[in-house]
Amino acid sequence: MSQNNSAMKVVGQSIPRIDAPIKATGKARYTGDMKLPGMLYGKMLFSSVPHASIVRIDVSKALALPGVKDVIVGKDTPGIKFGNWRLFPATQDELPLAIDKVRFIGDAVAAVAAISQDIADEAIGLIEVEYAPLPAVYTIEDSLAAGAPLIHDENKELTNNISLDRKIDVGDVDAAFATADYVREDTVFVHAVSHAYMEPCAVLVEPDTEGRLTIWTSTQTPYIVQCLLASTLAIPENHVRVVKPYIGGGFGGKMELRPWDFCASLLARRTGRPVRFVLTRVEEFEVGRRRHGMKIRSKVAFKKDGTLIAKDFEAYLDGGAYNSMGPTATFLCGNFGAMLYRYPNYRYRGHHVYTNKPPAGAMRGFGAPQALYLSETQMNIAAEELGIDPIELRLKNAMVTGDVIEGVTRISSAGFVESLHKVAEMTNWKEKRASLAPNKGIGIGCYSFISGGVFNWFNTQYNFASCEIRAYSDGTAHLLTMAADIGQGSDTVLRQIMAQDLGLDPEQIRLTAADVTMTPKADLGTWGSRVTLMNGNAVLDATQKMRAELAKMVSLRFNLNVIHEVAFADGRVFAKAQPAKGISFGEAVTMWVKANRGEELVVRGHYTPRDLGLTSPAYSFGAQVAEVEVDPETGVVTVEKVSTAHDCGTVINPLAVEGQLEGAIQMGLGYALCEQFVMRDGKTLNTTFLDYKVPAAEDMPAIASAAIETYEPQGPLGAKEAGEGLAIPTAPAVSDAVWHATGYRCKDLPITPEKILRATGKL
Amino acid sequence: MSQNNSAMKVVGQSIPRIDAPIKATGKARYTGDMKLPGMLYGKMLFSSVPHASIVRIDVSKALALPGVKDVIVGKDTPGIKFGNWRLFPATQDELPLAIDKVRFIGDAVAAVAAISQDIADEAIGLIEVEYAPLPAVYTIEDSLAAGAPLIHDENKELTNNISLDRKIDVGDVDAAFATADYVREDTVFVHAVSHAYMEPCAVLVEPDTEGRLTIWTSTQTPYIVQCLLASTLAIPENHVRVVKPYIGGGFGGKMELRPWDFCASLLARRTGRPVRFVLTRVEEFEVGRRRHGMKIRSKVAFKKDGTLIAKDFEAYLDGGAYNSMGPTATFLCGNFGAMLYRYPNYRYRGHHVYTNKPPAGAMRGFGAPQALYLSETQMNIAAEELGIDPIELRLKNAMVTGDVIEGVTRISSAGFVESLHKVAEMTNWKEKRASLAPNKGIGIGCYSFISGGVFNWFNTQYNFASCEIRAYSDGTAHLLTMAADIGQGSDTVLRQIMAQDLGLDPEQIRLTAADVTMTPKADLGTWGSRVTLMNGNAVLDATQKMRAELAKMVSLRFNLNVIHEVAFADGRVFAKAQPAKGISFGEAVTMWVKANRGEELVVRGHYTPRDLGLTSPAYSFGAQVAEVEVDPETGVVTVEKVSTAHDCGTVINPLAVEGQLEGAIQMGLGYALCEQFVMRDGKTLNTTFLDYKVPAAEDMPAIASAAIETYEPQGPLGAKEAGEGLAIPTAPAVSDAVWHATGYRCKDLPITPEKILRATGKL
Repeated sequence: MSQNNSAMKVVGQSIPRIDAPIKATGKARYTGDMKLPGMLYGKMLFSSVPHASIVRIDVSKALALPGVKDVIVGKDTPGIKFGNWRLFPATQDELPLAIDKVRFIGDAVAAVAAISQDIADEAIGLIEVEYAPLPAVYTIEDSLAAGAPLIHDENKELTNNISLDRKIDVGDVDAAFATADYVREDTVFVHAVSHAYMEPCAVLVEPDTEGRLTIWTSTQTPYIVQCLLASTLAIPENHVRVVKPYIGGGFGGKMELRPWDFCASLLARRTGRPVRFVLTRVEEFEVGRRRHGMKIRSKVAFKKDGTLIAKDFEAYLDGGAYNSMGPTATFLCGNFGAMLYRYPNYRYRGHHVYTNKPPAGAMRGFGAPQALYLSETQMNIAAEELGIDPIELRLKNAMVTGDVIEGVTRISSAGFVESLHKVAEMTNWKEKRASLAPNKGIGIGCYSFISGGVFNWFNTQYNFASCEIRAYSDGTAHLLTMAADIGQGSDTVLRQIMAQDLGLDPEQIRLTAADVTMTPKADLGTWGSRVTLMNGNAVLDATQKMRAELAKMVSLRFNLNVIHEVAFADGRVFAKAQPAKGISFGEAVTMWVKANRGEELVVRGHYTPRDLGLTSPAYSFGAQVAEVEVDPETGVVTVEKVSTAHDCGTVINPLAVEGQLEGAIQMGLGYALCEQFVMRDGKTLNTTFLDYKVPAAEDMPAIASAAIETYEPQGPLGAKEAGEGLAIPTAPAVSDAVWHATGYRCKDLPITPEKILRATGKL
Repeated sequence: MSQNNSAMKVVGQSIPRIDAPIKATGKARYTGDMKLPGMLYGKMLFSSVPHASIVRIDVSKALALPGVKDVIVGKDTPGIKFGNWRLFPATQDELPLAIDKVRFIGDAVAAVAAISQDIADEAIGLIEVEYAPLPAVYTIEDSLAAGAPLIHDENKELTNNISLDRKIDVGDVDAAFATADYVREDTVFVHAVSHAYMEPCAVLVEPDTEGRLTIWTSTQTPYIVQCLLASTLAIPENHVRVVKPYIGGGFGGKMELRPWDFCASLLARRTGRPVRFVLTRVEEFEVGRRRHGMKIRSKVAFKKDGTLIAKDFEAYLDGGAYNSMGPTATFLCGNFGAMLYRYPNYRYRGHHVYTNKPPAGAMRGFGAPQALYLSETQMNIAAEELGIDPIELRLKNAMVTGDVIEGVTRISSAGFVESLHKVAEMTNWKEKRASLAPNKGIGIGCYSFISGGVFNWFNTQYNFASCEIRAYSDGTAHLLTMAADIGQGSDTVLRQIMAQDLGLDPEQIRLTAADVTMTPKADLGTWGSRVTLMNGNAVLDATQKMRAELAKMVSLRFNLNVIHEVAFADGRVFAKAQPAKGISFGEAVTMWVKANRGEELVVRGHYTPRDLGLTSPAYSFGAQVAEVEVDPETGVVTVEKVSTAHDCGTVINPLAVEGQLEGAIQMGLGYALCEQFVMRDGKTLNTTFLDYKVPAAEDMPAIASAAIETYEPQGPLGAKEAGEGLAIPTAPAVSDAVWHATGYRCKDLPITPEKILRATGKL
């Protein structure tokens, strides 16, 4: 893609986020801050039992409570299912309100709209539900056992609780194993964790008088919510306007239609009044999506010199009661199992398993933290057993630019080898790994991640990313994009890309984002680290069209001939070789408007990856080293330092990448050391931040990082992802460091003091 | 212009207004209903003296009042003037906050922002202003007298209080008068009245963290407010986003930048918080714009048979302290003086005069009610004196299709003759005029009005009207227009035009209107009855582009050859001669999106009148007859019936036209009989609806009407204006009927009982 020929002035700068001042001063309006005249307050009734038939629901007492305006149950709805987006009809297994069966503690059963939150809360307690209990299963093993209850017996295609299988077969795995010098097989259990976003889910719906709805909802995927809401309400798609307000994090937990979105919408249509739902933190922990717990087995084969020759990888995903995004996670987990190293022969078998627990969905990394926890841990074990330094073993097998796994990946840029060298140098790896003080450990974990998906996961007819740019005589411009900034900083980054390519000051660019009715259709949302690459490419498509239009004006004004390159910089448009022959950006726009007899200068840009394999247009890579101290008496792990060298292509905004890295390490530490759900009979017991332990600021280690800049040909100005991949390496790195300090190799996250003490014979 | 070839199914239907349900149920949010977190409440300090130098302003006590967040005075502003839009620099004479001089009781002097309205109100009382009084003038005569104080002595171009003159010279008036058989000269004084819109002016401004402002303001002209606000704040135009909320009427009184728009914006920028101003009714009467009082002289020459041969017309407009829209009114008044009848020779001299009173601006009819009150009254007098029936006299001179007054008008359709015949027939005119019971009277008044202006009054570089249409696979579409519906129903009418031309159900069309940042640039706003014609034409420009795109799809699908006309009706696109060869509108859109590799189907339409003379693309015409009874003892006039025959071209929505007619008659009755400002020394004394008498529902007469449908070639589907013209004929018709009943011919509106009793010798 040809880009602006002036030097990089905006891209590469640590520009503070557009939303930093408004968030830091507390003025940003989140959905829960919004209030409309006549607004009703909503509350959901969630199932209190893990698996049951609904015999009877009596809402009469709730309806009779003064101030209650409406109560809805499943039979008041069109009864249309949704599921793993709209890709495969068979994965649509969830009703917005249960009709005759509940499948987990938290399945939505009824919803109330009342004139105050207190009344709505009280009304929920007045709804009588009679359940006929059914046997329930809570583990992958129980769910797959002979005679287990069929959780989705309504789906006649299913003969057990596996909702979906996924296969990958590359080369001849069995033949390769037969020639191996060294084979290693491990099985790990990686646990479910919470997204723990700061803002609980919230939705506000305002009806108009013709059946249309405007919805402010805490979502990563406004377009997808629009489509699924319209489908479940059985109304035209474009009667639903989803507007993304400020969002307090998502991490994958806000990329689906949720029952409160549907209930607020239906209640708004029925009452003719705005309706708002705000979940409590307890509800979030009980019914919010979570990261998939998985049971994963990996068998790898090496030649004596450490060369990998085959991998046989199998994952069982604990999906909970519904598919949610599980089928996609089952797909991606297998792809991630094939990443980082060159496996000439690769086999994957993935299985998505129903259990009577809250459904698992997407979460930062989307299958990769689980797959790579095992891959990386196994690589460290193999290195030990082969007597090769873990970094050396990785360097021998590392993916490089140009690698292709047919049907899985095409690596158009990879800075993995450089990352490994760099992190070794940054940490003085060899020396420390060889000679550390007692109870100290140093360990390594690596990652690779996608920059958005090539596969049309949502079966959209529209481009994957689109934008519109309008330019004005006053020297300002307006970027309209459906991209959803949920806190990751994409608005800032897209504006930098646009400013760079048009030679404008970012502050002169107005940005309107993520309003499905007003911003150009469509955009698949924020997930899979797709936004910078896909929307960035859409922006560049538009800026290039804009530059072509304005270059004409300068050519006309100065009678430039064809050899003149027209440059855009410092708010000017000019002949590159004769900068005096130029005019201001605004003046060029004025010329254009006049030449076009009063039309506004508007261009649209698009991006859809085509013919780029099945997974992603581009891949990030990186290596991370953790240094820990383990208290031998208490088993408490203190992570002292985390060092990362990583390749995210061109770094558009170093400050933003740094923020992603710090947040990712925090999340990785929680995954590795302290976060877990405590469940009993399908019920989540730890439902507050007092009981569900997330690392806080004082738990953070020292952080060192180095960017290995590559130029990604598929990315905007060479950029690729920096959002999710960084959340992957911390758990294996810390786990390896704990092994290095204690000899305990964790195969069932999290690494608790109790497990360490048991392993070291102290308990 | 080629239009959809299917029969009219939507246009011509009495479809209720889009906004009827939300307004009737009280749910429509006007600016004064809006509230944002952290919002400050604003209050203006207006000058209490009619003409003075400002010696000193001390805001320290106001600033010290707890809860006051900011106080601004003129010296805190950039000091940039605004005026009669931005057409002529010389007409820019008003500051948003006075700096060293005030020129009327109501000139804006300071503004406060506080945490409550009560505190803001109290703070205003704590501002100390020391004035050095200057002599003041309150009438046209005093203002033009020798030695009168110069109200704008800062403008060195002016040697007296006339801010602007306007001339029209057609033919040789003096020569024509020399050949006349009958000459009649009259001078009338028409008074100032209030727009008396139900919603007082209100504005809410929200700042962002980068210097941009979002403004909800009760305006007819969002684009003009955007431009003037940016100019007076000295910030880029596109940093200002004006969004039109629901509006409770405007009638010309809300088409300018007003001081509260500016003050709310500046206070919001200074405090970083949203700021809202809502005027009180008293403030509205004191400082709101008003209709121009005028002193007008007309001299007309006839041949014996009643043929008009010349007119000499001169108007002095009482402009108040600033130009406001007065220069435009001065221009238009002369054009309206030349309307209705064929004046082969016409002279106009117009003068806009400053006085120390609240500025007059635009008001429904914009110069025409005044000009035509005199023209029509004079026609009735002449008919009497010539011994010709007033309708006969009019028929002899009536403008017809094809008439041209060079530089003034081009009549491309006129149903005036038909209107005169029709109203005579409806009212049994001849018989009643000849033989009515005592104290009963029947009288006639006629009108013609523009359908928008051809002249580029705002000196915009953009098209006068623009829109965007987006079409979707679900069979819906989205119309984005900057047209500002202020209660007249234009949203409904534009949607009807679009639905008609695309064969859609209007309810399947989403409409987004009047948001200068989101809807296509530009639109000059709601005034001069321009919206149906101009925006309607822009909509048709877009629908034609849309039809061309979708027709391609049907041709491709059915392999239609070139002779097939593709029709759009009932949500389908099909070969007109073989309706089975067709697909749904939504399916055609899907084909288009796929053919265009995922782009959204979006088209833009534009309209700018070019080469259509100087005034308007089209003219409405009509005749109205009023029947009254006058109580001889009290002088009270009871209007019993008003009958109207009028030509507004194709009637897009009969219900909407009926609404316009009824409202216009009500306004005309107020103008004729009861509304007036009571002023003393520049101060408005009647500042509530108890003192300022507007006709109420019980004052309304029986109403009869007939539409004379013509097909206006410049109008959308043949339509032209129906909004303002109808406000013109009632005053002359009632006046003529009062004369018919009493012999009193009013030349100084309003026609009060006192004047009738004096004229009839009863007082």
